[in-house]
Amino acid sequence: MPDPRLFLDVPLAAGAVLVLDQGQSRYLTTVLRLGRGGRVRVFNAADGEWAGEISDADRRGATIALRDQLRPPALGPDLDLLFAPVKRHATDLIVEKATELGVRRLKPVVTARTISETVRLERFNAIAREAAEQTERLDLPEICPPALLTKALDGWDANRPLLYADEAGDDAAAPWGGQAGRAPPLLDAAQTTRAPALALLIGPEGGFDPAERALLRSLPFVTPVSLGPRILRAETAVIAALAVIQSVWGDWRSPSSS
Amino acid sequence: MPDPRLFLDVPLAAGAVLVLDQGQSRYLTTVLRLGRGGRVRVFNAADGEWAGEISDADRRGATIALRDQLRPPALGPDLDLLFAPVKRHATDLIVEKATELGVRRLKPVVTARTISETVRLERFNAIAREAAEQTERLDLPEICPPALLTKALDGWDANRPLLYADEAGDDAAAPWGGQAGRAPPLLDAAQTTRAPALALLIGPEGGFDPAERALLRSLPFVTPVSLGPRILRAETAVIAALAVIQSVWGDWRSPSSS
Repeated sequence: MPDPRLFLDVPLAAGAVLVLDQGQSRYLTTVLRLGRGGRVRVFNAADGEWAGEISDADRRGATIALRDQLRPPALGPDLDLLFAPVKRHATDLIVEKATELGVRRLKPVVTARTISETVRLERFNAIAREAAEQTERLDLPEICPPALLTKALDGWDANRPLLYADEAGDDAAAPWGGQAGRAPPLLDAAQTTRAPALALLIGPEGGFDPAERALLRSLPFVTPVSLGPRILRAETAVIAALAVIQSVWGDWRSPSSS
Repeated sequence: MPDPRLFLDVPLAAGAVLVLDQGQSRYLTTVLRLGRGGRVRVFNAADGEWAGEISDADRRGATIALRDQLRPPALGPDLDLLFAPVKRHATDLIVEKATELGVRRLKPVVTARTISETVRLERFNAIAREAAEQTERLDLPEICPPALLTKALDGWDANRPLLYADEAGDDAAAPWGGQAGRAPPLLDAAQTTRAPALALLIGPEGGFDPAERALLRSLPFVTPVSLGPRILRAETAVIAALAVIQSVWGDWRSPSSS
């Protein structure tokens, strides 16, 4: 088993002694049953990943003494995910899986058909932190406060192409469940993108409404894409699309193929 | 909203009157509050998808009278998924998402590090059926009884290449969390496959043990693949890998690109 891994948003350096909060202390000492001398890894985006060991542990908490840097700081691809919050459990899954799949920023957007439960930013951050610890990335994704879709598109940086998948079919005339109209497959669209920054927009279960779709189609930085002949749930669409994007545009590519 | 969609494993034909079981009757009349004349769609792999309407509905059940065929029978790509059962909720997710992503056969395999809960075939079938109804596919995936990995590989049809992703790193020397050794990216491996049948193998959270890895590497039909620089949970790996495979090998491709 690899040494447990903790995100700590404090400066990391050789010899530093870090005081853990209650939750992290309990995780190491009670869940993992580690004591003094137990090996751990600590990471954050600014300082990379460090090896350390538990230097003190009692009922009040634990401290970690850092030794050597294991990995220098590094960010993954500059990939944003705009997603319409869906049901509680599915939204949690979107946050967890987007973190595993290397998204840099998570942007909840409110669309006409969003069945909006409260966006629980604190909970999202906790899920993202745990997923980042588990998935071996060095940074935490930034989780933005929710915005109306129209606001998010207003003032968009034109250097960041936006790929959007509309699970309810790509125009009003497209038969539900048929081939998704005229949008090109995501693979083709992502493959031709040479921009260093990219964004993906996945709509709510009910799809975008006609006005939203017309707006999206009118914007020069937006490309509609198809995710195959079957209807996908929102969380499936997020995970599937991110995997394809990382494969052809992001950091799943072989080092030789850029 | 599209008409509700039910899988029924009986012959479908114009004029046929189908008797629904209690669960399906209740779904239409109580959950969706449909009555006599309510429109529904019915499908199966042998007969495709049909339009029908509720011809009778009372406390004991409902019947559906079929009108016209909406879609002729059609199967998706000949894609098998071999997966090691993981925790209950994650395994349910694998079955649901593999159905959405068009897998034809789901084969639970028991590996050295499988933390084996009981494989609940009846539950898996119910999940797959609901996912198929929702995702607009015409067939249900076949869910095979669990087999030892070694048995599953014994007598393998050499015409079906097997791509395997080992989330714990692709050999004992590969650093946890580093680039996954020498395995090519899944995209590259799937892109060069011209076989009409394919299989994907995703291991348990702890990865394959050295003997399993040596066996897999020794088999001429097996190609190890990498799923990027981060460690993915088993269910994430399944969904992500299936999306990439459907994009370059399967039915997410544009009609022009085969």
